[in-house]
Amino acid sequence: MKFVEKLLNISKKNNSLLCVGLDTDIQKIPKFLLKEKDPIFEFNKRIIDSTFDLVCAYKPNSAFYEALGIKGWESLKKTVDYISKDIIIILDAKRGDIGNTARMYAKAIFDELNMDGVTLNPYLGEDAVLPFLEYENKCSFILCLTSNKGAEDFQLQKINEKPLYEIVAEKVLNWNKKKNCGLVVGATYPEQLKKIREVAFDLPFLIPGVGAQGGEIESTVKYGTDKDGNLAIINSSRGVIYASQDFDFAEKAKQEARKLRDLINSFRVGA
Amino acid sequence: MKFVEKLLNISKKNNSLLCVGLDTDIQKIPKFLLKEKDPIFEFNKRIIDSTFDLVCAYKPNSAFYEALGIKGWESLKKTVDYISKDIIIILDAKRGDIGNTARMYAKAIFDELNMDGVTLNPYLGEDAVLPFLEYENKCSFILCLTSNKGAEDFQLQKINEKPLYEIVAEKVLNWNKKKNCGLVVGATYPEQLKKIREVAFDLPFLIPGVGAQGGEIESTVKYGTDKDGNLAIINSSRGVIYASQDFDFAEKAKQEARKLRDLINSFRVGA
Repeated sequence: MKFVEKLLNISKKNNSLLCVGLDTDIQKIPKFLLKEKDPIFEFNKRIIDSTFDLVCAYKPNSAFYEALGIKGWESLKKTVDYISKDIIIILDAKRGDIGNTARMYAKAIFDELNMDGVTLNPYLGEDAVLPFLEYENKCSFILCLTSNKGAEDFQLQKINEKPLYEIVAEKVLNWNKKKNCGLVVGATYPEQLKKIREVAFDLPFLIPGVGAQGGEIESTVKYGTDKDGNLAIINSSRGVIYASQDFDFAEKAKQEARKLRDLINSFRVGA
Repeated sequence: MKFVEKLLNISKKNNSLLCVGLDTDIQKIPKFLLKEKDPIFEFNKRIIDSTFDLVCAYKPNSAFYEALGIKGWESLKKTVDYISKDIIIILDAKRGDIGNTARMYAKAIFDELNMDGVTLNPYLGEDAVLPFLEYENKCSFILCLTSNKGAEDFQLQKINEKPLYEIVAEKVLNWNKKKNCGLVVGATYPEQLKKIREVAFDLPFLIPGVGAQGGEIESTVKYGTDKDGNLAIINSSRGVIYASQDFDFAEKAKQEARKLRDLINSFRVGA
């Protein structure tokens, strides 16, 4: 099944554009979980158990697992295996390297970890992205405009009157021969989000930056979704998974996820 | 000890600017190693045994280990532990993510894996790099101009008459408060290498692209080294480690490494 079809199915089934970011940090999870054999997986499992019918996707952040070395990779793999197969899983990895190396990253992420999607960095150009695009049913979300302040350093700089992020969006449209590209556009730049959606009208967008990073829901939904109110994957990480750091963390995460999902839907065409 | 000091020490001790890239691919290593418990580590161990006195650095390529999942990380960790502590180890990882995530990547690479240096992608700007720069004795090599064709897509595009890679180089000079930044500049762009060295005259350069990728040694050494013929880490991966894929692979790698080291030195000021 193509990624977009899977995304539309789960968005409809759970009536949700919400993605929960699994930025699971051993320093931030409730202390009582530390006595478990694999506290990171235990935390994720309970977050998933309490949010699986409220999301369209989960987005584990590779860095948080890598920081724990081999144990982290074990936790990540168990987490992926635990998530129901009809829910999208995107590895936030922001990879980007020349052809023969890119092939290895694609193998790691799509074959070994069995992710549905991945985030990629465009700085190395087309040949760094192509090996990922050979996986027809996976989706490669290419960084277009990120949600952080540092986006100003290069992404917002103009090349012949056009900001770099727009050049990236146009290139990605060219690379999208197999209809398996997406874009990462931060919720903290609503005007730009609107402009990018006008050009890339049928691409799935992964939109981080609501919640802890300050992006507003209304503009994110209005400008980030396609004409049918779909194809936006709106991510919140810390705002949901650390809604409480106590015994009630899973319940609080569920409440927060439901609130966000419903708020997103309140601005959505046709939801 | 600061990274640059460590680099100068080993460059002097081994009279070498050569870095051997450990892009170890289970499909390409000699078949007879596959019966070993950890073929990847066995291969690396023998490559290291036969080249340790000919190099200034080793550069494991993270993708190749990630592609093997947990086993790959084990092989990588064993490889790092096996390398003599006076030799530089750079993880080619090309990471880049917003602040709180960047901190996790830095932890993974500098604390957990104990690398001396890392390669980073500049697309997300300053806040994606800063957490790495807090490690005073490590070195962050920021991608400036990469050796592949895709470099044309964005890196060579001009912002106000100046190509993006030059803007990146200038930014990195500003970020270099703790003298722990370096640049990645591909050997396949000699003219640009020369220009970047003129501006970033005291930064260590990691220079991939000689050998399999076609970069020429003479221009790489002349334009890539500093005024004393130092601070360039010239990488060859496939050309050295796969010089033979038979029983004699380690011996052939040694011959190739010596040839490359000596060729580099023949163009080097003061060597």
